[in-house]
Amino acid sequence: MASLSVIQTQTPPGMIDLGRGDPSLSLLPLEMMRAAAEIRFAGEDPSFLQYGSGQGDGYFRLALAEFLGKRYRFPVESDRLFVTNGISNALDQICTLFTQSGDTIFVEEPSYFLAFQIFKDHHLRVVSIQTDEDGLVIESLEEMLARFQPRFLYLIPTFQNPTGMTLSQKRREQVVHLAQERNFLVIADEVYHFLNYADISPRPFAIHTDIENIISLGSFSKILAPGLRLGWIQAHPQKIAQLVNCGLLDSGGGLNPFTSAIVRGVVESGDLEVNIHKLIQIYRERVKTMDSALKQNLPEVKYKVPQGGYFFWAKLPDQMDAEVFQKNAESFKVDFRPGVRFSSQGGLSDYIRLCYVHYEPDEIEQGILRLKQCLDGGG
Amino acid sequence: MASLSVIQTQTPPGMIDLGRGDPSLSLLPLEMMRAAAEIRFAGEDPSFLQYGSGQGDGYFRLALAEFLGKRYRFPVESDRLFVTNGISNALDQICTLFTQSGDTIFVEEPSYFLAFQIFKDHHLRVVSIQTDEDGLVIESLEEMLARFQPRFLYLIPTFQNPTGMTLSQKRREQVVHLAQERNFLVIADEVYHFLNYADISPRPFAIHTDIENIISLGSFSKILAPGLRLGWIQAHPQKIAQLVNCGLLDSGGGLNPFTSAIVRGVVESGDLEVNIHKLIQIYRERVKTMDSALKQNLPEVKYKVPQGGYFFWAKLPDQMDAEVFQKNAESFKVDFRPGVRFSSQGGLSDYIRLCYVHYEPDEIEQGILRLKQCLDGGG
Repeated sequence: MASLSVIQTQTPPGMIDLGRGDPSLSLLPLEMMRAAAEIRFAGEDPSFLQYGSGQGDGYFRLALAEFLGKRYRFPVESDRLFVTNGISNALDQICTLFTQSGDTIFVEEPSYFLAFQIFKDHHLRVVSIQTDEDGLVIESLEEMLARFQPRFLYLIPTFQNPTGMTLSQKRREQVVHLAQERNFLVIADEVYHFLNYADISPRPFAIHTDIENIISLGSFSKILAPGLRLGWIQAHPQKIAQLVNCGLLDSGGGLNPFTSAIVRGVVESGDLEVNIHKLIQIYRERVKTMDSALKQNLPEVKYKVPQGGYFFWAKLPDQMDAEVFQKNAESFKVDFRPGVRFSSQGGLSDYIRLCYVHYEPDEIEQGILRLKQCLDGGG
Repeated sequence: MASLSVIQTQTPPGMIDLGRGDPSLSLLPLEMMRAAAEIRFAGEDPSFLQYGSGQGDGYFRLALAEFLGKRYRFPVESDRLFVTNGISNALDQICTLFTQSGDTIFVEEPSYFLAFQIFKDHHLRVVSIQTDEDGLVIESLEEMLARFQPRFLYLIPTFQNPTGMTLSQKRREQVVHLAQERNFLVIADEVYHFLNYADISPRPFAIHTDIENIISLGSFSKILAPGLRLGWIQAHPQKIAQLVNCGLLDSGGGLNPFTSAIVRGVVESGDLEVNIHKLIQIYRERVKTMDSALKQNLPEVKYKVPQGGYFFWAKLPDQMDAEVFQKNAESFKVDFRPGVRFSSQGGLSDYIRLCYVHYEPDEIEQGILRLKQCLDGGG
């Protein structure tokens, strides 16, 4: 019997899975994409169906550079942008081009668990660097640099996954300084940067395209639609050239010419700005809803209210084991991600990650209520 | 000054580059894609904008399986198909998942030169296997198997790039047998399989999805449009599972959900069949044109008329150096690919590859005439 699934994450009927990190279907911009596709097909120019320029469609990069420049409030040059199939593809390609089997890399503890598997597929040795409320702990980084020569440090500096923490400005500067001094790359996954619900605006690593060691990864997955598999790398021209001259690009041409030509319409029309504004309004409300529900139902659980991004990172009381809690929660038809999955060391067993982008406010409230019922029931 | 290029390959004005391997812009199916996009957007289901199923959209795989089954004339199961971003992406991912830096792999001599760079990016050791008019020479394969344990053998069994040769049925069976006996993978790049201009129909390696060692790669690049970055892997369920469970997929979901949902319309409507039929008619005529022009203008050049695919593989007279010829041809405003680029050993210096898919018949005639003028001029 063939599987006819279209979507990656499936949840059993009736279950509320607060672990899911994909947006509600109702938030996907079908109308905007339809309008942009109409524009592109009306153009009578079939170039976007041809092997594409290795760096990515020049007109798309120009529109993207203008969008990023406005958002970041510093000039962005389209020649320092490289079009990708999203962050996962960018990470994979960076591993291929800038590492060899057996090399050491650094990650935050905790970090995005699905990146670990990409690093593992490339036979890399993963070393953890501690984090606190201001992100990566510099002393921990220095300590590990005394012991290892990493090829790169992978970090999510803003509204981190899973903790929601943002790296302080001072530490950003220290990371950049150390990368140059000790000759490793910084791979900054800035995917949540534009989903800012409070009045904080950290400077992205994307500003450092004058430094060869700094590579910023961006994506349309969180600000438009994940199914597009479209993102970008912002980096020094020398690094862009290395990416463009790789075998994958030489052979297949640009990574996503068809989709980027359509999405260009969404960027140029201003629809992307409209969409980001809408998402921020909606997610900000969902953060409030989840915060209230947690305070009311689970006052013993500790967390900081996220100021952006996708996640609550919460500490369970009494060193409760999150995986046991998860197992018990199943019969209450609610789910989440245990913290241990974000640890490259098997730690953080009393933490959970809750995501608010997939469900409507009433479902979020219902989900948190079920967690309480599970705890009350001895979960 | 920002580069606004959209297309990968640029040719100087007035130059006829018979080395180009991309189709004419006029052959790109803008109308078919427009119609298919309209269908998908009219559906009101935004699922194709969500993180996609890791193996690829189930409905798309079902349509693809039906198409392949009809074309191949054996049943194809959609569960044995995995959606890719094209052959280059498939090769890259296979290198990541099934090799480590320093491993040995086998390629045909000559072979598709842009694949070499992908293997180099993965720090693989490339060993050449001889070919003749029936494709890979089994004695050469056995000789190298006595000396090396390859992770895989990469070959283009049908209408090969650059030689246009097709591996005989007997040798196909021997390759499959040796792969099982000596435990290496066969990566069969079957991208030209459907572009058949004569009455030969070799059995594709795609038939062997019951054997774990055999992996068939297919693509829409040559039968629909290269800019889609859409292709497939056909393999044993165990290999499909390894592909689906990799980090890249776990994280980003399916590789091309948006585009595959649109292309599904082209497959289901029968437009893909119409397009292949059209391409075969056009390319068959261009083969005749190039053959006549070569016979008339360059009778001293030796080649076999291709029965399918994209290329003439021609031997220059008197051990002429193709790179010197190419340099001289520049002032005659004509270009081609010297054979040495397809050799992993720096050989084949008196061969050239001529492609007929990018130019109209009159341009092909003009290009060959210029080659004659260059030779007459002492090129």
